Amino acid sequence: MCAVRDVCVIGLGLIGGSVLRAASSAGRRVWGASASQEDVDAAVADGFDASTDVAGALTRAADGDALVVLAVPLTAVDDVLRLVAAHAPNCLLTDVTSVKGPVLDSVTRLAPDARYAGGHPMAGTAESGWKAATATLFQGATWVVCAEEDEGGSDGEPDLTAWREAAALALDAGARVVPLPALAHDGAVARTSHLPHLLAAVLANVASVGGPLAGALAAGSFRDGTRVAGTRPELVRAMTEGNRAALLPVLDEALGLLGAARGSLASTGGLKATIDAGHDALVSLTEQQGAPRTPVTLDLRAPDAREGLLSFGQRGGWFTALDGDILHGEVA
Amino acid sequence: MCAVRDVCVIGLGLIGGSVLRAASSAGRRVWGASASQEDVDAAVADGFDASTDVAGALTRAADGDALVVLAVPLTAVDDVLRLVAAHAPNCLLTDVTSVKGPVLDSVTRLAPDARYAGGHPMAGTAESGWKAATATLFQGATWVVCAEEDEGGSDGEPDLTAWREAAALALDAGARVVPLPALAHDGAVARTSHLPHLLAAVLANVASVGGPLAGALAAGSFRDGTRVAGTRPELVRAMTEGNRAALLPVLDEALGLLGAARGSLASTGGLKATIDAGHDALVSLTEQQGAPRTPVTLDLRAPDAREGLLSFGQRGGWFTALDGDILHGEVA
Repeated sequence: MCAVRDVCVIGLGLIGGSVLRAASSAGRRVWGASASQEDVDAAVADGFDASTDVAGALTRAADGDALVVLAVPLTAVDDVLRLVAAHAPNCLLTDVTSVKGPVLDSVTRLAPDARYAGGHPMAGTAESGWKAATATLFQGATWVVCAEEDEGGSDGEPDLTAWREAAALALDAGARVVPLPALAHDGAVARTSHLPHLLAAVLANVASVGGPLAGALAAGSFRDGTRVAGTRPELVRAMTEGNRAALLPVLDEALGLLGAARGSLASTGGLKATIDAGHDALVSLTEQQGAPRTPVTLDLRAPDAREGLLSFGQRGGWFTALDGDILHGEVA
Repeated sequence: MCAVRDVCVIGLGLIGGSVLRAASSAGRRVWGASASQEDVDAAVADGFDASTDVAGALTRAADGDALVVLAVPLTAVDDVLRLVAAHAPNCLLTDVTSVKGPVLDSVTRLAPDARYAGGHPMAGTAESGWKAATATLFQGATWVVCAEEDEGGSDGEPDLTAWREAAALALDAGARVVPLPALAHDGAVARTSHLPHLLAAVLANVASVGGPLAGALAAGSFRDGTRVAGTRPELVRAMTEGNRAALLPVLDEALGLLGAARGSLASTGGLKATIDAGHDALVSLTEQQGAPRTPVTLDLRAPDAREGLLSFGQRGGWFTALDGDILHGEVA
């Protein structure tokens, strides 16, 4: 297994461009392709091997068994997967979109022979396009790399090749890797990222009804609670609308809790249950995040490696290094 | 009119103690009383005139026409107002609790002859009690001082004596003064402070269902959106439960907007309306807060001074100085 596998990135915006730069900085041979002439021109001007010939880039990946990274918006994934099926049907494949279940479904449907492990680097800036890309964007960030419980090589042995390659790229970029099934990822980000964006939008909307007075009386709680409503709307729509299946039940939970608070305030005048539970939840989460973490190693060649990965991720663990087939990480 | 009127503070916790210290630092004669022996002992140890004899402190205020400041929790206001009616029935009176409509109702009912203008200094810390009090707590803070549209002296002239005295105290403490009717205040803080606290509690609760994974994947949006869930629950309950009448319709607005988002995501898959409106609302608010502000003066002796005050507050204006009867402020 090649420790410095070549990397082919399709899509050269902020995330794709940063992946290309980070992989290159880590000493890998890299090339990229994008439908955006502007991003390609900017990448070439910065000395990178980039073109608008996506099919050609994929053919080259197939010839050299490179890792292909899909870094296009969710709405463009299916089109690129059709090109993967045509030009690099058996390639090692990962992606960097913010939802994982829908992309897994698309890969299964459109490029079923690809050796795929989905990814989600949780990093970004308010900027977009190649010009905003940096080799250090993912330093210290969390990067989910997906594995499913029911996968396995045809001989019953664990086939973690694609997972290993996607994780090695994330680690090369300086990220910490959390292994999760696609749907567990989508449910967790619905709770910890997509719901916060929608609550911020609702709060900003409710405040705006109060007119200029809201600006004069805005407390710190309001500034904190609305900050992410300033994110570019198309980014927020892409991640929330793309995660519809996982987000709907989480929205229902939030509506249920807020409705219960409303009912309690109206009927008894009290909000103790809501406020105490919210406080306790935040305290627990903060304690968990501050708890001492135990070093862990995991051998990817072990028969139960897949189960070990997934159990480790669900417990809130992450990996920080890959040494041969040995992962090094920590968990609370 | 005495420019440095004496100040009698009832309640010597964080807010009352800070009012006493700030008024003293501004050169006023001050004394305080509290049912808390601990706070009184600490105040006396710091060289202040304080006792547990609330009735005596009020009698002294009545004798010297001092400004009485109620700085007790909302749940204790009625009991202290009965003492005001008994020992200083005509006194100049203000308060520093976080809701204004319920206190105005209590004053009207229990101490109807007091010359009252409610106040709400929007400042605080995570600490409580006299030992946390400082003379600078209100420097740069917003301090709402209430006036009602239908008030007026018995001869039809504006009677802004109580408003003037409460505002002068706030300005002495370094705050900026926003004049508002009690119910306008309560509606605005329901939107900009109380709803954010409840949404933060709901968000922390929803995330905790995700278990340890939520801690590993918590994004900046989540940290911002849950931060105030760490506030002491009894403080959050006091302000939200105390503002029930104004908070209920605001909770209904939030439930309506969140429910509409849920419905749109389920039926059409889109969240454009929610996300765009939230983004636009925050941009507008930020632009308004950053807009150049125009200096304004207002003569408290003018026949339309009350209307001028209230219109100014509703437009998001605040006052920063009082020179004789002339207020100096700014508005966007």
